Amino acid sequence: MDEQQSQPAQGRRPRARDTKRAARAAHAGIWTPYITRKIPYYEVLSEEGLVTIENNADTILQEIGIEFREDPEALSIWKAAGADVQGERVRMPRGMCRKLIQATAPREFVQQARNPARNVLIGGKNTVFAPAYGSPFIRSLDEGRRYARIEDFRNFVKLAYLSHSLHHSGGTICEPVDLPVNKRHLDMVYSHIKYSDKAFMGSVTHPDRARDTVEMAKILFGDNYIDPVTGKPKTVIVSLINVNSPMTYDATMLGALKVYARANQACIVTPFILAGAMSPVTVAGTATQTLAEALAGMAFIQLLNPGAPMVFGSFASSLSMQSGAPTFGTPEPALVLYVMAAIARRLGVPFRSGGSLCASKIPDAQAAFESAQTLLPTCLAGVNFVLHVAGWLEGGLAMGYEKFVMDADQAGMMHTLLQGVDLSDNGQAMDAIREVGPGKHFLGCAHTLANFETAFYRSPLADNNSFEQWEAEGGSDMTKRANLLWKKQLEEYVAPELDPAVDEALLDFVNRRKASFPDSNV
Amino acid sequence: MDEQQSQPAQGRRPRARDTKRAARAAHAGIWTPYITRKIPYYEVLSEEGLVTIENNADTILQEIGIEFREDPEALSIWKAAGADVQGERVRMPRGMCRKLIQATAPREFVQQARNPARNVLIGGKNTVFAPAYGSPFIRSLDEGRRYARIEDFRNFVKLAYLSHSLHHSGGTICEPVDLPVNKRHLDMVYSHIKYSDKAFMGSVTHPDRARDTVEMAKILFGDNYIDPVTGKPKTVIVSLINVNSPMTYDATMLGALKVYARANQACIVTPFILAGAMSPVTVAGTATQTLAEALAGMAFIQLLNPGAPMVFGSFASSLSMQSGAPTFGTPEPALVLYVMAAIARRLGVPFRSGGSLCASKIPDAQAAFESAQTLLPTCLAGVNFVLHVAGWLEGGLAMGYEKFVMDADQAGMMHTLLQGVDLSDNGQAMDAIREVGPGKHFLGCAHTLANFETAFYRSPLADNNSFEQWEAEGGSDMTKRANLLWKKQLEEYVAPELDPAVDEALLDFVNRRKASFPDSNV
Repeated sequence: MDEQQSQPAQGRRPRARDTKRAARAAHAGIWTPYITRKIPYYEVLSEEGLVTIENNADTILQEIGIEFREDPEALSIWKAAGADVQGERVRMPRGMCRKLIQATAPREFVQQARNPARNVLIGGKNTVFAPAYGSPFIRSLDEGRRYARIEDFRNFVKLAYLSHSLHHSGGTICEPVDLPVNKRHLDMVYSHIKYSDKAFMGSVTHPDRARDTVEMAKILFGDNYIDPVTGKPKTVIVSLINVNSPMTYDATMLGALKVYARANQACIVTPFILAGAMSPVTVAGTATQTLAEALAGMAFIQLLNPGAPMVFGSFASSLSMQSGAPTFGTPEPALVLYVMAAIARRLGVPFRSGGSLCASKIPDAQAAFESAQTLLPTCLAGVNFVLHVAGWLEGGLAMGYEKFVMDADQAGMMHTLLQGVDLSDNGQAMDAIREVGPGKHFLGCAHTLANFETAFYRSPLADNNSFEQWEAEGGSDMTKRANLLWKKQLEEYVAPELDPAVDEALLDFVNRRKASFPDSNV
Repeated sequence: MDEQQSQPAQGRRPRARDTKRAARAAHAGIWTPYITRKIPYYEVLSEEGLVTIENNADTILQEIGIEFREDPEALSIWKAAGADVQGERVRMPRGMCRKLIQATAPREFVQQARNPARNVLIGGKNTVFAPAYGSPFIRSLDEGRRYARIEDFRNFVKLAYLSHSLHHSGGTICEPVDLPVNKRHLDMVYSHIKYSDKAFMGSVTHPDRARDTVEMAKILFGDNYIDPVTGKPKTVIVSLINVNSPMTYDATMLGALKVYARANQACIVTPFILAGAMSPVTVAGTATQTLAEALAGMAFIQLLNPGAPMVFGSFASSLSMQSGAPTFGTPEPALVLYVMAAIARRLGVPFRSGGSLCASKIPDAQAAFESAQTLLPTCLAGVNFVLHVAGWLEGGLAMGYEKFVMDADQAGMMHTLLQGVDLSDNGQAMDAIREVGPGKHFLGCAHTLANFETAFYRSPLADNNSFEQWEAEGGSDMTKRANLLWKKQLEEYVAPELDPAVDEALLDFVNRRKASFPDSNV
């Protein structure tokens, strides 16, 4: 394991003082670069149950195997490593993938942001929140639902930059459908760099687009791109590699994966599963298949570049067995999430899952129920990198402006929750209880006055007023208040400074690349 | 401990076969009398942290004490038991209350319902869901917000009776404001008995009203009221006794508590705390005070009637430090909940807390976020008796028709969650994975066909359809669908059979009592 990779920025781990400051900051709504949890993980399965799933995953890899399609290089790499390769089917001996991963994969790694104060430590007891990813549509109270444009993409980058509870700028926050498919990645990556100073994700839809992302990162980080100690590139890009479940890696994803892994950039290897269609209808079956698929992808990364940072991903939704539609916020995916997080810890790699997922088309009560029933399990399970924390609607088809700030508010609460119970003398508050005594109230006591500024999470969107006051103020629902909030935030947005020379070089690269091949929507 | 009290109906504990049947039933939406969890508890504090809070609670009881107001009898009982009584202030030596409770209080007990198949086992690994309690207002999409009437009360009893995910009829589901304060308890208790066959709660607003509840229960249960083995009354009523935090029991609540405890009926002793006003602004301070207050009340019950069934209650909300308004679904009350549940388990008594609490005036996204952020912690913490599971709006001031069925849907999901991961061969689903293989889909495989009817929780309210289909069907939000659902349920309602002689006797009692004193709104 690469020690450099496993340490946070400035080569030190957070100390007690830092976490205390972080706790205070979370209360006051001040931004912290990522969450370091102080509460235990929630686990649904015993060791015995987890071992059953691990053994079954090994059985899948050994008996059934995984297909690596249209990628002869991948097949020869597997063959050379000792796997049984028949056609495009790769069967791995029991324990082979686990061994490859545990030999070299970092347990945690730092993804550098252009602002070093916003570097994120992915893995261990840390949680990083990133916006939703991949929607072709946007939804707002003003415009309803329409195709997303690059302007929306920029807006969401700005909102994520401004959010105190999001630590990461994300990737394809929405698809800028007004730009050609084969060039829009350039504008997306540029927007992340230009309008935010948080860490971001790279393009995965074609190996060339992955290479473009790496080139732009090199321009951005300049002399800082190569780690002087290891001589290897620093990890400045995290990218989402979805497995074509069941048990298939396709050439597109493998192409991007190889580019990033060889450049020491982190891939999130994520079996994307709608259980019932792409996996069995059971929790244990879905978890087993997810593990087998992810093990194969992660082992392949370590074969390509031993020590390359990576993340074990799991995306599991259940299916409506009546309509075939994906469902979210139901109990079964939550159970899968708890199981996978525990298995990732046992394997010793960072874990990605969860978010604020929902099937609802609009940011109504259904959206909120489903999102909360995903985000809270995400946090209790101990997910390290959380995509889709803010904005997700309609099973990921639409990115909601109101939903974005509503979700960010909930993510803020998770900061407080994950800090746990303060058992200091001030937290125990015995002086307050002694001061007040039976039948009195605590509102004016010394302890309350000393703590009230930081006591309790403050939601910018919840209306806690009396019915009469709420009604007098128009009787709005949360969505209407969210509509005002995101507009106010965009109005107040000020871009983080970017070295004009770097900006110019980036734009030059983007323009040259755009001019070098014709537009295409494939 | 009374063994009779600690056993479920028919004198046996649930067997493996029962829990399997229950799991299947939960999936299929078939009613089970209560939930027996198969997943671990979530705990936020270590043993050391819990001991700190327990020690601090003992310090409160010893140093500060608890006031028992306007109840000389209570003071003499405490004095006789060895407490230090100064005026109305009672100080208990360290460990005294715990010792009294652990000597005689049942760890779990059965509350009988008039339909024995609906008896609930309160305590242990079991969870009982009951509707919200105490709202003077109702809210519906049709009428907005208005004062509640007895007709609403009956409607909610019917909806709770029909709900597969609610196990209990509750108590003051809403205040029938159209009836005089001093007589409405008669109509409420009668409505629970008449329109449902689930277990119910008693009146606590005056000792006479508690006595009326006991009398009506005696009429209902007849020869069955007295347990032939113990010669004591069976527990057929559970009642909510709120502590006037901080550290005060008032005469009204003590009066009702004494009636019920002496009749072997269960009291839920609940410090009702808006943290920041009635307790310190910290989680640990609020937990400590809750424990001290509850210990005093529970010990008092065991002094009154050793072995009387009872429940340790905790209701803790945080306060908006800006407006003084109570807030719900925030992280701090969830932390208090996890701590108190763990402490109740260590004490060895059933625990009540949580629900689907929210501050929102309407069943919007705020209501859903807040409710989910309360109900899920409630279930993970291991609450045994959950009041306010369905209908709660506006900090408890309004009972929502739409909110009721939306919450019941969420409660249904919790049934599935609490059943955990099926690790049987069918659950592991290796045959399915072998049958399907890479790149295929599971929709038509034998395992899916064998399981699809019970696979995945099915929400009657979530819209998982495509955007196009949803829009074509009117583009409704969850509240509109909930409006249709509760009306349909009320239309289809058929009352459970009640022996006409019992009904007549109950009505005769109610009418005689009503005629025996003038109406009053005090």
